[in-house]
Amino acid sequence: MNGEKLPSYDTNPGEWYTEIIQKAELADIRYGVKGALVFQPWSVECMEKMYDYFEADLKKRGHKNYWYPALIPESYFQKEAEHIKGFTPEVFWVERGGEEKLEERLALRPTSETAFYTMFAQWIRSYKDLPFRTYQRANVYRYETKATRPFLRSREFYWIETHCAFRTKEEAYQNVLEDMETTKRVVYGIFGIPTIVFERPAWDKFAGAGRTFGADAITPQGRVVQQPSTHMINQHFPKVFGVKYTDSDEKEKTPYTTCYGPAISRIMASVILTHGDNKGLKFPFEIAPKQIVIIPILAEKEPKVIDKAKELLETLEEKGYRIELDTTDKRPGEKFYFWEMKGVPLRIEIGPKDLKTKKFTMYRRDTEEKTTINENEIIENIEKQGKELSENLKKKAMKTFNGLIKDAKSIDEIKKIVGTGIARTNFCSVEKDGVNCAETIEKETGGKIRGTRIDIEDKLIDEGKCVVCGKKANHVVYIAKDY
Amino acid sequence: MNGEKLPSYDTNPGEWYTEIIQKAELADIRYGVKGALVFQPWSVECMEKMYDYFEADLKKRGHKNYWYPALIPESYFQKEAEHIKGFTPEVFWVERGGEEKLEERLALRPTSETAFYTMFAQWIRSYKDLPFRTYQRANVYRYETKATRPFLRSREFYWIETHCAFRTKEEAYQNVLEDMETTKRVVYGIFGIPTIVFERPAWDKFAGAGRTFGADAITPQGRVVQQPSTHMINQHFPKVFGVKYTDSDEKEKTPYTTCYGPAISRIMASVILTHGDNKGLKFPFEIAPKQIVIIPILAEKEPKVIDKAKELLETLEEKGYRIELDTTDKRPGEKFYFWEMKGVPLRIEIGPKDLKTKKFTMYRRDTEEKTTINENEIIENIEKQGKELSENLKKKAMKTFNGLIKDAKSIDEIKKIVGTGIARTNFCSVEKDGVNCAETIEKETGGKIRGTRIDIEDKLIDEGKCVVCGKKANHVVYIAKDY
Repeated sequence: MNGEKLPSYDTNPGEWYTEIIQKAELADIRYGVKGALVFQPWSVECMEKMYDYFEADLKKRGHKNYWYPALIPESYFQKEAEHIKGFTPEVFWVERGGEEKLEERLALRPTSETAFYTMFAQWIRSYKDLPFRTYQRANVYRYETKATRPFLRSREFYWIETHCAFRTKEEAYQNVLEDMETTKRVVYGIFGIPTIVFERPAWDKFAGAGRTFGADAITPQGRVVQQPSTHMINQHFPKVFGVKYTDSDEKEKTPYTTCYGPAISRIMASVILTHGDNKGLKFPFEIAPKQIVIIPILAEKEPKVIDKAKELLETLEEKGYRIELDTTDKRPGEKFYFWEMKGVPLRIEIGPKDLKTKKFTMYRRDTEEKTTINENEIIENIEKQGKELSENLKKKAMKTFNGLIKDAKSIDEIKKIVGTGIARTNFCSVEKDGVNCAETIEKETGGKIRGTRIDIEDKLIDEGKCVVCGKKANHVVYIAKDY
Repeated sequence: MNGEKLPSYDTNPGEWYTEIIQKAELADIRYGVKGALVFQPWSVECMEKMYDYFEADLKKRGHKNYWYPALIPESYFQKEAEHIKGFTPEVFWVERGGEEKLEERLALRPTSETAFYTMFAQWIRSYKDLPFRTYQRANVYRYETKATRPFLRSREFYWIETHCAFRTKEEAYQNVLEDMETTKRVVYGIFGIPTIVFERPAWDKFAGAGRTFGADAITPQGRVVQQPSTHMINQHFPKVFGVKYTDSDEKEKTPYTTCYGPAISRIMASVILTHGDNKGLKFPFEIAPKQIVIIPILAEKEPKVIDKAKELLETLEEKGYRIELDTTDKRPGEKFYFWEMKGVPLRIEIGPKDLKTKKFTMYRRDTEEKTTINENEIIENIEKQGKELSENLKKKAMKTFNGLIKDAKSIDEIKKIVGTGIARTNFCSVEKDGVNCAETIEKETGGKIRGTRIDIEDKLIDEGKCVVCGKKANHVVYIAKDY
């Protein structure tokens, strides 16, 4: 809350990110567990809204809401070899309750397939039970060995996980596509974060999945932030857990399953990074922790200004807006600076002369424009300017995003792009036999292959040779550094 | 979902409780961790609403929303001797991350004072920062040695915890009283569960607290279910954690703190137990997982019935109601029986002739009355009957509750009351010197002293002698068996 200047978002985004988290009181890293952090109201209010939008969308698609235990028996994990291999290096183990050693070690959930599938085996009996769509809002725990960074990578994070079962592979795949539509509707449509949907290469699949898809956002500085992933688990996993149903032909069959995992706390990182500027944060109107701040001007000379401000606060609160009235003893200029840094979309200024004219000044955080509005048209103005602000943030983000995607025809060209953008290039194979070329790219450029697009037919560049081995390219892939 | 009859709520409430949880699909106990359970959509939807009401009330009172890590370093715990003594027998310990032994054991939060206070020491600087009101919605973990029972006592449960700091003891006590008002407004006002607020005896305080207050609900069968507790932590705890502020007189002082803990999953047990009947569950309209079910009648003869039902479903969903349309191939009678058991407040029946008359039949779960309503007055009718149902459940619960409180003048009389009600009696002292008499009562009657009332001045019975030792009684106390 002090007056020190923020590092520049344009030229020093890394430090800007670290500083804004502290200055805007989004989260406090001074907690005694490495990689864990205390989320403060300014981020929690926003993330609660983000949960609401995701959950409403999933419910509309027929997902039902469960609460599963955070503790998962080790024996559940051990049923599926790839899964245990993928997750055990990252599991927090509970081995003791009070003074007693537990009979079986319990994993603090790193993900919940094993817990959900164990119950699916009890609940799913008939084809009439399918499709079976479930989700839970939960925290997950991973003993990260990589460097942690607030919101981007921490040892406890906040997500939603869906687990669904279907009669056919086609239906399951359809659900994967719908998951990606949810991502688009919510992450882009509401939060204003553009993404590309990739199918991940074979070497980058979720432990135990058949196919993995992921949406990638990219910061204006050119680093990828992974958004929700969705997985075709197929039949192997449900088989291991004994999930089966009697079909209409009386035969016993195994369903096809999928899962989808929007990590709310990581998407929050994209909200911070995508919409920020040199002044601080910006939030889309729908998810802003506070949507409006009222600043009384010269109230020490005209006490009625405060009465008016309070009256307006009440009116707008009743309408359901999230609103703040700043009555601290700071000067108006300081207050402006502070709430702009916090990213409040709209500011209403009320001074002594406004009491007579019944007009207020409204400031918009994105355009930095001030307009004069009539008191009796205030709701319409808030609605209009709030909507315009969100649309403007989206448009701006999309424009930046599109400018970050560049074609590359050689490893040198990839090297030039990676770090400031995402390179689009020809590649031999995203199956296992392409892994050597992928490793070369990572070693030479520092970028990772994000995958192939499933939303468009992506045409090969020029003669269509793999940028590494020169053999016939089968795919266009995208390469970037990630967080 | 099968057709077997429920055990009687009136004569066999224990079995009724176990069965209804399974039959109504509130929670599944077949999960592989003892004392943990999987909450299913029918309880989750209700508990989400319960969270909403509590959180809205707390926010209105100025509490801000935090998310703290679930893992608490052992060193935080060890700072306060009573607290560690009180909680360590119940702590789940994380000792390993992946293959590595952690440098310090981490407690899976059994409660979060130590985590909150550690951060308070960083955040609270000046008297201007006070009052400082915070809360989080979280899961807590306790390695219970007592027998667990779904919703009533489990090893993972769902709660809200508030942690607040004040300048004076009076302000802190005022906040305790406001917490109890929140309990009344939400637990009684919305959920329809009557409670009495007690100050707990000295031997029953929260580990580390100065004074402990608790609201007790009581089932129609006479067993207490503890509702939210609130604690005057006073200054000792903040001192231990170095929480201090500079007052307006420039002196450094220690704030007084309080905490309040509504356990949502346990309050849910009271909703089940208080409002149930021989047919199954009943929910207040505001927190019902589904508020209305639409049952099409004879749709096989008149397909337009389904169109009408769907049209109505959409209209009501748009209005924000939680609503179900049952298009399964069961007979209407079976559907009635099923949704009554599930506790849906209102049922709308639509048959072929209703399409012409534009009138529907509406059934109310509490009164079991059917009324005929005009299609164009459906919203008003839902609002009116929903409100009446909630009021009726409240009134009925309060009447039962009042009938359960009985005066007792001897240990024998207490013995007769305990188990079917709550005994009100004279008692020598709720300070440490009364503990022997309390133990006698518990041994002889199986009931526990719940405490003294703080909401009314409770007059001693007759000559005012302690029911156990015969010495001068200083208090009226209440005795009951609890869950």
